[in-house]
Amino acid sequence: MLTPNALNAYRGRSVLVTGGLGFIGSNLAHRLVEIGDVEVALIDSLVEEQGGNLFNVEDIKDRVSIHIADLEDSSLVSHLVAGVDYIFNLAGNVSHLDSMSFPLRDLELNCAAQLSLLEACRSFNPHARIVFTSTRQVYGKPLYLPFDEEHRCAPVDINGVHKLAAEQYHLLYHRAYGVRATCLRLTNTYGPRQLMGHNRQSVIAWFIRRALDGQPIELFGEGRQKRDFNYVDDVVEALLMVGASEKTEGEVYNLGSPEPVTLAHLAEELIWLTGKGSLSYVPFPPERQLIDIGNCYSSYRKIAEDAGWEPSVNLRDGLERTVEYYRKHQVHYWKENVDPVPRSLTRA
Amino acid sequence: MLTPNALNAYRGRSVLVTGGLGFIGSNLAHRLVEIGDVEVALIDSLVEEQGGNLFNVEDIKDRVSIHIADLEDSSLVSHLVAGVDYIFNLAGNVSHLDSMSFPLRDLELNCAAQLSLLEACRSFNPHARIVFTSTRQVYGKPLYLPFDEEHRCAPVDINGVHKLAAEQYHLLYHRAYGVRATCLRLTNTYGPRQLMGHNRQSVIAWFIRRALDGQPIELFGEGRQKRDFNYVDDVVEALLMVGASEKTEGEVYNLGSPEPVTLAHLAEELIWLTGKGSLSYVPFPPERQLIDIGNCYSSYRKIAEDAGWEPSVNLRDGLERTVEYYRKHQVHYWKENVDPVPRSLTRA
Repeated sequence: MLTPNALNAYRGRSVLVTGGLGFIGSNLAHRLVEIGDVEVALIDSLVEEQGGNLFNVEDIKDRVSIHIADLEDSSLVSHLVAGVDYIFNLAGNVSHLDSMSFPLRDLELNCAAQLSLLEACRSFNPHARIVFTSTRQVYGKPLYLPFDEEHRCAPVDINGVHKLAAEQYHLLYHRAYGVRATCLRLTNTYGPRQLMGHNRQSVIAWFIRRALDGQPIELFGEGRQKRDFNYVDDVVEALLMVGASEKTEGEVYNLGSPEPVTLAHLAEELIWLTGKGSLSYVPFPPERQLIDIGNCYSSYRKIAEDAGWEPSVNLRDGLERTVEYYRKHQVHYWKENVDPVPRSLTRA
Repeated sequence: MLTPNALNAYRGRSVLVTGGLGFIGSNLAHRLVEIGDVEVALIDSLVEEQGGNLFNVEDIKDRVSIHIADLEDSSLVSHLVAGVDYIFNLAGNVSHLDSMSFPLRDLELNCAAQLSLLEACRSFNPHARIVFTSTRQVYGKPLYLPFDEEHRCAPVDINGVHKLAAEQYHLLYHRAYGVRATCLRLTNTYGPRQLMGHNRQSVIAWFIRRALDGQPIELFGEGRQKRDFNYVDDVVEALLMVGASEKTEGEVYNLGSPEPVTLAHLAEELIWLTGKGSLSYVPFPPERQLIDIGNCYSSYRKIAEDAGWEPSVNLRDGLERTVEYYRKHQVHYWKENVDPVPRSLTRA
């Protein structure tokens, strides 16, 4: 929970959220508006199939400023970065599968874009407070579980390689230039305002959709893989708590959950909650088998100790709120294209 | 030393060297021509100030094929990669200092180019044998010395971040697609055919030049930093031994030397060998202090055990051969521009 002190860290201040129309970015924007007296700017390139969605901010669009542009638009980014108090840097390519199909595109979105933002900080706001969202995928196959931040990093997909490079950029600009950066390694996040249009980003989002659609939920390898899940409000809280904490500057933190569950258990919960959907056991598709890492879940002890964060929404409550949201707003999230390779990404 | 078996691994085969007009690439090309009955293709983009130099292959230019192009020229690269037996992948941006001034350019040369090459392998030659040269700089500040391959990687400059990403690409394409890749983490390499035109790439090359020019050799922090140095012929031997060894596929290896020496000692050796130059003690320039890592040298035990490599040229002999080469060919290496920021790289 954000202490009054932490809340005060944001009141009367300005915040830039990159990827601000995306899943986590737009939930963060809502929270900042709710805190009140915060000047909120969102930048998002609305790259197709990435999760940026104008409906995500429909109800707060008059209380935030919205910039549709990519981070390599250096004149705009310099302008937005200059003088801002906080940057929550959430922009990026999320799909591990897409990163393997289109590695150079992932490089552009996860490395070139991040370097451009940090170069803007270095030139125009070298002591900006910046919180970057990375992924637990940087660890690769677990040597032990739960992962802690000392676990060696050996990413098994291009997305993991690039997110790790982007973390290192942030830590390097911290050491070399004084940019006040913190990196969070997120695990599976779920909740309202997530991309639900295809199944290449998030296993949990896809399960939720299949259940709500009354369709079979496909489990690879019998769904025995154990994973941890964070409800998006808890992730937003982590971002804000870390942003308000000097102690976390220059550090990397896992998020995580006290209750890792199997994918089969998750699917059963959803079928029970929605009263729809069914289980379907299928063999691993080869392109997923290639980058699958089996059981994995993280220890969040370090962020608990340094910033006092721990997740407060349990899986059932989080799923209930999520299902309710999509029941109400389905039309804005159930896009047509669920093709594994969208035409716009087809290689020449 | 290459065993007869290892030599036979190359005879009657085809080899592509990326960065083939550069320092190590051109020395490798000479060795391959000397082995005989090897079809050698070199690709080099001759990026200004990087070290590519047509004079490096002047005496073998009729015995190799030379392609001036960058690795993102996908039609040419696909053509070169298809059907080749070995790829020695040496292309890249080398300067740690330049990488901090122009990070996006370093990203292009060390990440985008490498991904393009590996994508060509995946499409046209998925079981190509590829040896990639990385750098000891991926370790960052030492937790212990000598570095072994288990040492954690926490690069302190952009070049180190990108070389680490490029290593991970190679290992990932090995695991996911069967590309038979090995990564070598080079330490300071010196010898004939190196870039000598400016001081932003190699401390040892610059010391050699200053001594031959009869100029003061500037030592930062009294020159007490201990480093290891490999003569280029030993590095070429490592590349060929590893390329011929199945056991090394999917692995990362340090090179190194049994005799780390201080930079002050190196400078004294050069002054003694050339009979010229002098020592000059100066304070650390801030842009170098930022990315300096103090003492560092590597353990080469793993490559000794797995591939039987160890360096065979000691520092004095190597320096003597090097000094002799540049005395003879100085005009082809002593370029005018030693400005720390060449005009062509000046930011807009």
